[in-house]
Amino acid sequence: MKCEVIAVGTELLLGQIVDTNSSYIGERLALAGIDSHVQVKVGDNPERLRQILDQALDRSDAVILCGGLGPTQDDITRQAVADVMGVELETRPELVDRISAMFSRRGRDMPASNLSQAQVPVGGQAIPVQPGTAPGLCCPVGADQVIYAVPGVPWEMREMIDGFVVPDLRRRGEVTEVIASRVLRTWGHSESGLAEILAEEIVRLDGSGEATIAFLASGIEGLKVRITAKGADQNSVEAVLEQQENRVRVLLKPEIVFGIDDETMESVVLDLCRSQGLKLGLAESLTGGLIGQRLTAVPGASDVFAGSIVAYSDAVKSSLLGLGPDVSAISEQGAIAMVQGAVQALGVDCAAAVTGVAGPSPAGGHQPGTVFMATHLDDETETLMVEWPFDRQRTREFTNITVLNELRKRLLARV
Amino acid sequence: MKCEVIAVGTELLLGQIVDTNSSYIGERLALAGIDSHVQVKVGDNPERLRQILDQALDRSDAVILCGGLGPTQDDITRQAVADVMGVELETRPELVDRISAMFSRRGRDMPASNLSQAQVPVGGQAIPVQPGTAPGLCCPVGADQVIYAVPGVPWEMREMIDGFVVPDLRRRGEVTEVIASRVLRTWGHSESGLAEILAEEIVRLDGSGEATIAFLASGIEGLKVRITAKGADQNSVEAVLEQQENRVRVLLKPEIVFGIDDETMESVVLDLCRSQGLKLGLAESLTGGLIGQRLTAVPGASDVFAGSIVAYSDAVKSSLLGLGPDVSAISEQGAIAMVQGAVQALGVDCAAAVTGVAGPSPAGGHQPGTVFMATHLDDETETLMVEWPFDRQRTREFTNITVLNELRKRLLARV
Repeated sequence: MKCEVIAVGTELLLGQIVDTNSSYIGERLALAGIDSHVQVKVGDNPERLRQILDQALDRSDAVILCGGLGPTQDDITRQAVADVMGVELETRPELVDRISAMFSRRGRDMPASNLSQAQVPVGGQAIPVQPGTAPGLCCPVGADQVIYAVPGVPWEMREMIDGFVVPDLRRRGEVTEVIASRVLRTWGHSESGLAEILAEEIVRLDGSGEATIAFLASGIEGLKVRITAKGADQNSVEAVLEQQENRVRVLLKPEIVFGIDDETMESVVLDLCRSQGLKLGLAESLTGGLIGQRLTAVPGASDVFAGSIVAYSDAVKSSLLGLGPDVSAISEQGAIAMVQGAVQALGVDCAAAVTGVAGPSPAGGHQPGTVFMATHLDDETETLMVEWPFDRQRTREFTNITVLNELRKRLLARV
Repeated sequence: MKCEVIAVGTELLLGQIVDTNSSYIGERLALAGIDSHVQVKVGDNPERLRQILDQALDRSDAVILCGGLGPTQDDITRQAVADVMGVELETRPELVDRISAMFSRRGRDMPASNLSQAQVPVGGQAIPVQPGTAPGLCCPVGADQVIYAVPGVPWEMREMIDGFVVPDLRRRGEVTEVIASRVLRTWGHSESGLAEILAEEIVRLDGSGEATIAFLASGIEGLKVRITAKGADQNSVEAVLEQQENRVRVLLKPEIVFGIDDETMESVVLDLCRSQGLKLGLAESLTGGLIGQRLTAVPGASDVFAGSIVAYSDAVKSSLLGLGPDVSAISEQGAIAMVQGAVQALGVDCAAAVTGVAGPSPAGGHQPGTVFMATHLDDETETLMVEWPFDRQRTREFTNITVLNELRKRLLARV
């Protein structure tokens, strides 16, 4: 079963919007065992869309069109599908009812232009999953091909793809194979470093066909190790992933693997503090609030995280964190004073502190990228100094994940 | 002059990486007056790339290939270009020298595999701009078509596109027309609200052909109003933009327009404080450090921004910001106490404070999205209460830009 994706919208070609929808659909298709070899972006031009659609149907069994289902003249997708099928559009009364009901639930009358959204090519069907006002389309082409059309609004698109399109494609293609993947989130080794540690395992897997391992450097989210497996059913695939995860974990050690799938460094540190009954605080200089922001992006952070003293100026480092006049703000001693000051000022059990030069200019006699970090736990302060070769943003981001990882390792050693 | 973009890489189809390169190239082409009607993503498969490339050359005068120029077997772009041209690849000694010199500057020997990067199709040339180890390609096809190949590494791609590909395309296409745009950054009106205010002006422009106006909602970056103009040369286009910017500014008023082009709400607030000799501080609850992080993402923030007290727990709101036991942490009074506490604790001239419920659960008797904000300047505290209909992340982001905009308006009124 081969399926292509065509994203429709001039704004995509002009670079005003990045096409993340196709990436999402590509990932879902891959995990569903459906091949997707080509993805195209095309503007709001009926003739060109028609040509691109014909070319896609020459190569593939199915096409997913994304976007162009709105109520305006720019929305050309419905007509293009009807043209390729060689049929007319017809208004479906049940869709008129559904769309006008959506408007009336919001206390508004349906504008006349929205009537066009109730049109479906003769012989096609509206996708039964319809989260917004735009119905999707599922239309046969000839005996054995199919075109789907879904809206460009990301959440509407996702519900239709997962709730209807992907299952329908699997049914049509009689794809019973299950593909699943698991991501081990790591920090502390480069991609080539991880590849070296896992080299023998990757060679073993290459021959076995059991699973594959891929690396994906993801900045502040760490370096992801993705294990992917195929099998006859969900249970057997889960068993392979489980087994493979364990093999990789043994090789990489807990120091490197901080989480799995949707876990983040922040959620893991919060969970460790929570399970150990510890309150967490921060003192941030060069990160300016980044670490606190990331920790509090996790719902429920409030039962662990007390707060952060963002001491950007030396005056605040001194008044709120008690940095003495003889201690340099950018130094190991500075980081130690900051983390201990944060524990005291915030009344917490453990804390992390960072100070350094984010760049682009040097400061305090240090080059950009020079960072001092400290963690405090069980009355002991530990430090780490790093010289990042990065720009301002990456220096701050890598500092964030590194200092939290230091704290994570100490919390882990405590259990 | 028509030019298509083909992004090469299986990881793009699998959704492991979002293709932002094509968006960048699309924007640059549009601003250079070069039509780009189709963009394609294709995997690391030589046959399919060849087919896609042929189809693109059937439609367009030029094709930009992005990615697949690395040193491994997956890197199929060079060979595909040679195949389409009907020629062999040849090793260019000057490229071997250039690549090995890059390695030796980093104190490393050039791996043998990188030799493949010195290969160029017979009759083609390496792009003279070469920021990384991968040379780009500029190859004629027949008498009047051209294929460019640039690396997928974003910064290398950008330097080659701006430094060579776009000027070369304009030269070949004899495009002398200049297109430029200016973005007014706004906050405080919805897209339809702005469209209403600018309705007459948009109608006037539609007829005149002088310029176009487009809106782009950009979340925490505000709502962008993009003015685009074409003309015979840079000076005349700049003059139209200048004039049009003034017309739009008069209609929208300074309350709505906070900046231009790359200015952000944060950089504008910092600039206003700097020019007025004011030190700035924050007290953040639901944003957890977001506002401080955004302010300090601006290089040079340190001469204005003193710090932020991220008071996530009620205990810290009380101990560091002096919130009394009779004041609710999530209330107008709470925001007032926080902003005044921040001014005192941080020793600053002006401050902003936010407290509220980011969600997903209600808190303190308030629904998610309930936010109280306060600003303090010249011994006066002002407040604002909002009930956002958003999720956790958007609630925090919209709070960030809204409270800074309140402070901006007050700073502006002071001049």
